[in-house]
Amino acid sequence: MTTTQVTLVQIDNYGPWTVTPEPRREADLQTMQSRLFADISQFVGNHGGYTFFTRFDNMIAVTNGLTLEDHELLQESVGNRYPVTLSLGVATDASPVQALADATTGVQNAGSAQDENRRECLTGVTVDDADRTAEDVQIAHFDVINATGTYTDELNAFDTFIEIEQGYAELMRHMRYAHDSLSFFVGGDNVIVVCPDLEAGDYEEAIYHVEETVDVELQVGVGRGKTAHDAGYDAKHALETCRADGTRVELEW
Amino acid sequence: MTTTQVTLVQIDNYGPWTVTPEPRREADLQTMQSRLFADISQFVGNHGGYTFFTRFDNMIAVTNGLTLEDHELLQESVGNRYPVTLSLGVATDASPVQALADATTGVQNAGSAQDENRRECLTGVTVDDADRTAEDVQIAHFDVINATGTYTDELNAFDTFIEIEQGYAELMRHMRYAHDSLSFFVGGDNVIVVCPDLEAGDYEEAIYHVEETVDVELQVGVGRGKTAHDAGYDAKHALETCRADGTRVELEW
Amino acid sequence: MTTTQVTLVQIDNYGPWTVTPEPRREADLQTMQSRLFADISQFVGNHGGYTFFTRFDNMIAVTNGLTLEDHELLQESVGNRYPVTLSLGVATDASPVQALADATTGVQNAGSAQDENRRECLTGVTVDDADRTAEDVQIAHFDVINATGTYTDELNAFDTFIEIEQGYAELMRHMRYAHDSLSFFVGGDNVIVVCPDLEAGDYEEAIYHVEETVDVELQVGVGRGKTAHDAGYDAKHALETCRADGTRVELEW
Amino acid sequence: MTTTQVTLVQIDNYGPWTVTPEPRREADLQTMQSRLFADISQFVGNHGGYTFFTRFDNMIAVTNGLTLEDHELLQESVGNRYPVTLSLGVATDASPVQALADATTGVQNAGSAQDENRRECLTGVTVDDADRTAEDVQIAHFDVINATGTYTDELNAFDTFIEIEQGYAELMRHMRYAHDSLSFFVGGDNVIVVCPDLEAGDYEEAIYHVEETVDVELQVGVGRGKTAHDAGYDAKHALETCRADGTRVELEW
Repeated sequence: MTTTQVTLVQIDNYGPWTVTPEPRREADLQTMQSRLFADISQFVGNHGGYTFFTRFDNMIAVTNGLTLEDHELLQESVGNRYPVTLSLGVATDASPVQALADATTGVQNAGSAQDENRRECLTGVTVDDADRTAEDVQIAHFDVINATGTYTDELNAFDTFIEIEQGYAELMRHMRYAHDSLSFFVGGDNVIVVCPDLEAGDYEEAIYHVEETVDVELQVGVGRGKTAHDAGYDAKHALETCRADGTRVELEW
Repeated sequence: MTTTQVTLVQIDNYGPWTVTPEPRREADLQTMQSRLFADISQFVGNHGGYTFFTRFDNMIAVTNGLTLEDHELLQESVGNRYPVTLSLGVATDASPVQALADATTGVQNAGSAQDENRRECLTGVTVDDADRTAEDVQIAHFDVINATGTYTDELNAFDTFIEIEQGYAELMRHMRYAHDSLSFFVGGDNVIVVCPDLEAGDYEEAIYHVEETVDVELQVGVGRGKTAHDAGYDAKHALETCRADGTRVELEW
Repeated sequence: MTTTQVTLVQIDNYGPWTVTPEPRREADLQTMQSRLFADISQFVGNHGGYTFFTRFDNMIAVTNGLTLEDHELLQESVGNRYPVTLSLGVATDASPVQALADATTGVQNAGSAQDENRRECLTGVTVDDADRTAEDVQIAHFDVINATGTYTDELNAFDTFIEIEQGYAELMRHMRYAHDSLSFFVGGDNVIVVCPDLEAGDYEEAIYHVEETVDVELQVGVGRGKTAHDAGYDAKHALETCRADGTRVELEW
Repeated sequence: MTTTQVTLVQIDNYGPWTVTPEPRREADLQTMQSRLFADISQFVGNHGGYTFFTRFDNMIAVTNGLTLEDHELLQESVGNRYPVTLSLGVATDASPVQALADATTGVQNAGSAQDENRRECLTGVTVDDADRTAEDVQIAHFDVINATGTYTDELNAFDTFIEIEQGYAELMRHMRYAHDSLSFFVGGDNVIVVCPDLEAGDYEEAIYHVEETVDVELQVGVGRGKTAHDAGYDAKHALETCRADGTRVELEW
């Protein structure tokens, strides 16, 4: 059974900061947001976790392998190097959506995202190291079949983007409501989904649903592991099998 | 009349690179992609342009103010500091979508995104400095009315994300098909749209369309300028007016 | 007794890379080198270690707290995100200089710094976690007494730099030959020294030696700990005591 | 005749910031300082200038090609993305040392480096674009002959570092006092020197002086140009000639 540890990363008071005393240059906001995400990706990734940029002022990470002390160090380090600070909520559940909901509640209880007095709150509990197993995390890595040939080399870059976005939006809603899963576009034509215990049939259903509704053809590799990286790396290998064998769904166990 | 200079930034042979000789750690790909985007945002931004991460392996920029030599320098600099290289296509048109289409065609003609022999191609023409005017670029900056109160402080972070995504997806399709415009989610609850000559009525129509179809309430500030930064900064100020006065559409001219 | 774990970080084949096929833009080399150092500083720092930029193509780190697997991950991560790769040699000794010498020998035995076939070698042994104690690392943090008043606000910036450099060069040679210690300029007027078991008298001797030879007045705070960060943070606090009390040498134990 | 435009980049109130409210993690300070330098290197470099990290809280740049508006943009951009701000002083003179002295005076007149009220001052004048020539900047690129064979592959990494440091310290003092030049170690075994109009004989004298005093053998390539990059790139090519032909001094004009 999955035991997904999810962390909500929320920049403190970001909306007001971006326009005080005057609006800030957009190019600088984009640079700062992206580099902050990149740093969190490295920090979490070095512990075997995955971070997703999501809305950039609110980011979601799968943090099996990180303790609360690790979370505290992340806050301290960011506070030393950026003009903003982070609040973090951590929670664990078999259901990734439930874990995220609990993590969110922790942060919301500490104060509004635009509460100028709420800074660097840290709430929640992490999985006890003694209880961790190789089935804690299930990661599914979807991509669009032959996106380069079908879209990138054929349509203008925005229309290709619209097609990928449609596929992502449909998959994201389906996986959240039908399967309690969290789906994240990670670049190119790739979507990584954090799942509870799903089976091959659930994935087949998902990709055919997306094909039916928005006519975007997906394939998926799925892995399980003690950390997001372990699960996700297996999922990448499973996806290579899809590419090599022409299959639509491959589970790496 | 707008004269939008658009650049398509495409990483050469990226798909194969990410899995050769073996799949690469996802956290590292996320970090590398984000920092590459951040660097391009700074380079383009220092010339008054805007860059949008789009799909990360394909990025779109509004580059009024950059010459072909500037584009060449960007390629050289990235080639010196990253394990990947960039191909760039530039084009200009009153219609942002048309400019992007032409820019895309330039890159596609040079070779496939996964053609291992296509490296660092540079195609297209930039606007002649003598022809540039303060009406070349029109930028609209949309955001969700009171996103913090309605979503961020109320729903779990993924359900908030779904709401914002729905609003973005609907706006993006409407603006592209009805108004030849390119829309980009830039973090938080913000969408920046690159438009041709539109009027207040077009923007009112757009936000009410989104409200009708997906029940997400937007407001928008619009600006014009010689560069994306000039136009976009005016748009930010116009958006502040929406916030202060409770209006839905504000044009800064 | 100290047990200093030192890692030599050497970029593979860097000299040739910087001029092949043509010399690369200096600004890009500076950017790439600095960001690589910054990343290594974060990676090592998140494990409680310290990294010193030294010559940028050769960097020295105090890595008590990092295992060989950690070193391997650092190599993999850098290889995924930079156009260069790293070779790493690790060794441990009561004497920091001896540890570094052994670490260097490990890398040298694997091949020349400009051997185009030597890539990502990893040699050496780390301290067994069971053997680690709170006296493993001794860090001394020197700075120039009232550098701002004496130099920065008075001389031109290069003459200030010359004064600081002279102080550093003299301290560096003295600490290496008299005390087997490794000294690193870390910015401003600060020098961090990695020491074996030294006593207050050794530090007094060092600062008076520097004052005698090059007329630069130093003060120093010293700490001990299980990691470089633990020792170094205590040293920073001890230095604050020097500043507050007007003393020249403070040991934080 | 040279017309060197030099900018002093000084972080505002940095000393106090690093210890308020408590000392900050050293690894974070190193990361932040290095990335700030890297960004300034890119900004200045994209205009054809060179930036040298010097003391990190005080950096020196050769900014022929940058206007005061460019300097202002750099300040704004850094202020949006870092937890610190910059004060900048710009000046021009045939003598690089004089230019730096004037730039420094400008900043010192605005207030102490640790004056908590002095923030983002910008002083000085830039070279009028109409007056710029291809002889404005003279750059000499020194390196140690066969550093890899003589030191890197033979000595321990710190003793190699000591040798390189000695050579740099001696060259730096000689070039400053004998030739009004600013010398900067840029990594590896490389020193870049910003010179007024010097001749081959001056460079021969310099390298033999260093060989006599500290027994470090240097070679040097020299270039001239409208910008630091133009001059420095020619210098790199001249250095390649030294390497190929076994000569000690090569001027690229």
